[in-house]
Amino acid sequence: MKAEIVCIGTELLLGHIVNTNNSFIAKKLAEIGVDSYFQTTVGDNPKRLADTIRTGLERADIVITTGGLGPTVDDITTRIIAEVAGRRLILETAVLKELSGFFKRQNKKMPKDNLNQALIPEGARWLRNPFGTAPGFIIECGPKAIIALPGPPREMEPMMRDYVGPYLESKVQGSGRRAQGMIIKSKSIKLTGIPEVKVNGKVKDLLALSGEVTVGIYSRLGEVELKIMAKAHNEKHADIEIKKIEKIIQKRFKEYIYGVNSETLEAAIVGLLIRHKKTISTAESCTGGLISNRITDVPGSSRIFMEGVVSYSNRSKTLELNVRQAMLKKYGAVSSQVAVEMARGIRKKADVDIGIGITGIAGPSGGTKAKPAGLVYIALSRKNGTICRKFVFLGSRKEVKHQAAQAALNLVRLQLRGEKRKAQSEKHRSAT
Amino acid sequence: MKAEIVCIGTELLLGHIVNTNNSFIAKKLAEIGVDSYFQTTVGDNPKRLADTIRTGLERADIVITTGGLGPTVDDITTRIIAEVAGRRLILETAVLKELSGFFKRQNKKMPKDNLNQALIPEGARWLRNPFGTAPGFIIECGPKAIIALPGPPREMEPMMRDYVGPYLESKVQGSGRRAQGMIIKSKSIKLTGIPEVKVNGKVKDLLALSGEVTVGIYSRLGEVELKIMAKAHNEKHADIEIKKIEKIIQKRFKEYIYGVNSETLEAAIVGLLIRHKKTISTAESCTGGLISNRITDVPGSSRIFMEGVVSYSNRSKTLELNVRQAMLKKYGAVSSQVAVEMARGIRKKADVDIGIGITGIAGPSGGTKAKPAGLVYIALSRKNGTICRKFVFLGSRKEVKHQAAQAALNLVRLQLRGEKRKAQSEKHRSAT
Repeated sequence: MKAEIVCIGTELLLGHIVNTNNSFIAKKLAEIGVDSYFQTTVGDNPKRLADTIRTGLERADIVITTGGLGPTVDDITTRIIAEVAGRRLILETAVLKELSGFFKRQNKKMPKDNLNQALIPEGARWLRNPFGTAPGFIIECGPKAIIALPGPPREMEPMMRDYVGPYLESKVQGSGRRAQGMIIKSKSIKLTGIPEVKVNGKVKDLLALSGEVTVGIYSRLGEVELKIMAKAHNEKHADIEIKKIEKIIQKRFKEYIYGVNSETLEAAIVGLLIRHKKTISTAESCTGGLISNRITDVPGSSRIFMEGVVSYSNRSKTLELNVRQAMLKKYGAVSSQVAVEMARGIRKKADVDIGIGITGIAGPSGGTKAKPAGLVYIALSRKNGTICRKFVFLGSRKEVKHQAAQAALNLVRLQLRGEKRKAQSEKHRSAT
Repeated sequence: MKAEIVCIGTELLLGHIVNTNNSFIAKKLAEIGVDSYFQTTVGDNPKRLADTIRTGLERADIVITTGGLGPTVDDITTRIIAEVAGRRLILETAVLKELSGFFKRQNKKMPKDNLNQALIPEGARWLRNPFGTAPGFIIECGPKAIIALPGPPREMEPMMRDYVGPYLESKVQGSGRRAQGMIIKSKSIKLTGIPEVKVNGKVKDLLALSGEVTVGIYSRLGEVELKIMAKAHNEKHADIEIKKIEKIIQKRFKEYIYGVNSETLEAAIVGLLIRHKKTISTAESCTGGLISNRITDVPGSSRIFMEGVVSYSNRSKTLELNVRQAMLKKYGAVSSQVAVEMARGIRKKADVDIGIGITGIAGPSGGTKAKPAGLVYIALSRKNGTICRKFVFLGSRKEVKHQAAQAALNLVRLQLRGEKRKAQSEKHRSAT
C-alpha cells in the first residue's frame, strides 16, 4: 500500500513556517508499513490543489492532506476534495453538535463562520478533533481513500495517532500485503553529558551499518540521540535486531544514557525521584525558573517537587536562601560558594531531600574576563553533603539557560543513579 | 518567474528528519520576487526523481533541488539531472582540486568515493561548498534552469544565500521583468487575549484582499498573527502599502496588539516595565516557573525582575507567601482568594511594584467537576489594589501552562497600558 502526503497552505510555500507535519505523518506511515514516495506542498489555490490531489490518487492508494480545514474563506480543502471525489457537501449534525460543545465548554458562543466546518463530503467518515474546531475526515473512493486532517500539529498529531493510524493498519491487514511486506521500526537511545563528536567517535562502526539495521546520530543542544532502525518482515523480528544494537550502545555509553524514544530528561528525573521516594526543591538564579518549569511539565511532579525560588537579586539570595552577605561580597553572586549556600538554603527551607542551587551569567552582557558570559555554577545539596560543578556554556542567553538546566537535571540523575549502585553493591557485600 | 523546490532523500520520506530546507529556500524566493507554487519531496529513486524534475520544469522556470549530492551510491541527483537535461557527466578538475583541499585542511586523505562528487553535468556552473564536500551546480536548459544544492542545511543555506540568490536576482532583472518586476515585503502584527475566530471575523475584508497587498492570519496557542504582505516595485512603495493596512488593523484591535514581527510577549512586557520604571515578582503554582522563565529569557530583565517563588505545596504557600491557612482550608489552593493572597504576598515580600499570583490545575489529572483541569486564577497586586481573573484553558498539561503564562503576562501588559492612558488623559485634563 502506498500513500502520499499533501500539505496545504500558502504560509508553507512562502516559508513562514517550517513543515513538521510531513515528518510526523511519514514516520507513522513507516511504522505501519505503508510506503510513501512523494510529499507535496501546495497553496490555497483551487486548481493547483485539485491537480495535486488527483495526481496523488493516480500514484498512490491513500492521499493524506493537512491544512485548509479552518472556518475562513481561505480554507478550501474540504470543498476541493469533495469536487475531486465527485461528492456533495452535506451538513453533518454530529459535527455541529461537537462544535457547539467545543465553544460551550469555553463559555463562548459559536461564531457563524464555524458552521462551515460542519460541512463534510457526503459518505465521508468524520474524525473528532479534541484540540480545535476543524474535524478531519476519511473519504473512500473505490479502493482508494483521501484523508483530510487539520494543519496545526497539536490538532493533527492526535488525530493521526488515534484515528488514521488504526484505519490504515486495518487497511494494510485487510489487503493481505502485510505478510510479504516489510515494516520499519526504530528506537532512539538518548544521551546527555557527552558531546556529539565524542559519541560519533565511539559509534563509527554502527553508523557505517548499511543492511537491514542502520544507526543514525542526531544532536540537539545538550543531548545526543542514537536512532536504531530495523527493516523486517514483522515487529518481533525488528525488535530482536534493535535489541542487539541497543545492547552494544548501552555497553559503550552506560551512565550517559538517560532514556529512550520521546522520554525527556525531566521525565526521567521525576520518575527516579518518585521511585527513590526523594523530594527536591530548586534555587535558581541564571536559569530564571527553567529548571522548575521543566520539572513541573511532567505530570505527577507535584509528588516530588515542593518549591522553587528564582532569586534574581542579592537581596532575595540573602533573605530567601540564607546566603551570607559576606559570601556575596567576598566571592560575588556568581561563585561556587554562593551556589553551595543557595542549594543548602533551599534544601533546609523547603525541608526536602535534595536542594539545587544554580548561579551564573546567562549573557549576552554582564560577563568579565574572569567571569565570562556562560559561566555557571551548579550545586546539589543533601543531608550528607553538598557538591558543586563549574561549567562554561557557549551560545545565546536562551541556549546558556537551556544547557545549564540540562546539566543541573543531569547532576540529579547521576546522584540518584550513583546511590542506587552504591546500595546495590553494599547489599551484595553484606550478602556475601 | 516561477520556481519549484524538490527535496530529495529517503530519510525525509521516512520522517526521520524535519525538512527545514523548504521554508529556508521559499523565504529567499519570496524576498527576491520569485513565485513558488509547489514543493515536492521525493526519495532516492531514479525514475520518480526524474519524473518530479521533469514535472517541475514543465510548471516552472526554475527547479531547485536539495540533497543526493553525497559520495555514496545512494546519491543519484547529479546523474538524474544530467539525464533530464540531456548532458554527459564530466570530471570537473576545479572541483577535484577543491575536494582535495577540503580533506588536506583536515589532515585527511580523500576517500576514493568522493571522486564522484567532481562529476558535474557538462556546461553546468559549479558552486563552491565551504562546509562540506558536495559542490552544487546550476545548469541552464534554454530559458529554464535546474539548480542542485546539498541537503544539510548548514551546507545548503550559505550556498543559497551567496550564489543562488544573486543568480536568481540577476535572472529576474535580466529577464527585464524586475523593472516591471516585484519584491515582496511583509510585516506581522501580533495579538493576544482574543481568539483566532474573533480576529478572523473582524478582518474578513482584509483576508479577502487579492491584489498587490494581502493579509494572512496565523494562530499559535494563545496568540494570533496578522501578516501583511506587499508586492511592489521597490521597498519604499511596499512599506507605504503595509503601513496603510497596519493602521486599519491597529484601529480595529487596539489593546489586543502587543508587538510586531518576531517580538515576543515577554520582551514587550520587559520593555514596558523598564520604560515605566516598575519592578515585578511572581508567585507561581500551576505554571511552575514558566512565567519567570519567560521573563528572564529577555536580556536586561534583571533590571525589573527581582524574585520568583514556585509554590507547589500548601506549606510553601503559607510559609513563603503568607497565604493564610484558613483561606487554603475554606476555598482550596485553587481559588481566587488564594491567588490574591499569593500576589500580595510576593509583592510585599520582594518589595516590588507588581506581584503576580497564579494558581490552577494544569492537569491532566487532579480536576473535579467543580474545579476541572485547566481552571486557572491569575491575580495582579499593586499598592493601590489587587485584581483577579478566572480562566478555563483546554489542552495538555504543557498547553495549559503556556496559555496561563500568556494570560498572566498579558494582564501585566494591559495594566501598564491602562496606566499610561490614564496618565495621558490626566495630563491632558490638567493642561486644559
